Amino acid sequence: MDIALKLAQHACDTGEIPVGALVIDKHGNIIAQAINQVENQQNPTKHAEILALQQACELLGQKRLIGCTLVVTLEPCSMCAGAASHYRVDRIVFGAYDPKGGGIEHGACVFSHRQTLHKPEIIGGVQEQASQKLLKFFFQQLR
Amino acid sequence: MDIALKLAQHACDTGEIPVGALVIDKHGNIIAQAINQVENQQNPTKHAEILALQQACELLGQKRLIGCTLVVTLEPCSMCAGAASHYRVDRIVFGAYDPKGGGIEHGACVFSHRQTLHKPEIIGGVQEQASQKLLKFFFQQLR
Repeated sequence: MDIALKLAQHACDTGEIPVGALVIDKHGNIIAQAINQVENQQNPTKHAEILALQQACELLGQKRLIGCTLVVTLEPCSMCAGAASHYRVDRIVFGAYDPKGGGIEHGACVFSHRQTLHKPEIIGGVQEQASQKLLKFFFQQLR
Repeated sequence: MDIALKLAQHACDTGEIPVGALVIDKHGNIIAQAINQVENQQNPTKHAEILALQQACELLGQKRLIGCTLVVTLEPCSMCAGAASHYRVDRIVFGAYDPKGGGIEHGACVFSHRQTLHKPEIIGGVQEQASQKLLKFFFQQLR
């Protein structure tokens, strides 16, 4: 999460909402790192999670990330939670909870219904305050 | 939907789950067309909806698709419904309902909770049988 937070800081420095994500393989190696790119690419699907998952999948040359962990500084939205489910990640570790845009513990609660295709282990609130602090700083700068 | 069904047939011919999608702008012009590319690109985010939305956004050079309609032959999953919400499409028209993988009328019901960022108009079941017939044919071939 320390590395994901550094990525989030970097996102912040480039004018993006500070979110950083990485993928760890089953051996504990970081195989992908990404920052939010929505503003720079003018494309709302370029969330850090999606970019990190795509990178990992390209690196491994396969469409499933079985045994992998997605680490992200903010609770994923329903799009990213749905993507993580399609990639079959084993685990999602996230920082700050997101009562407004989150899709795991809030809103659509993507993994909390019977039809869910794949339910990863979820660990939320890891270094929550550090992530919240960055987000708060970013939005204060905008005002 | 006739064009989306032709795209779905094309997906089927290339070994993909038969789903086709297109985006119509506020003037009624088709500005993007895509087929499911999950198998060919070995990437589970390459759903027809995501590809069509990205194409439309690149064409218009903006990150919002206000006034646009997403037409797709199958009920979008939670990932695609979440993406459509980020793109701020006005309307989603879909063909077959998907009780197993759908994320609008089933499962996560992405737009059916208070926190939803943006709720497009939803019209489901358009040429439902034609879409179901294609899907059934595809999965029968696999067995």
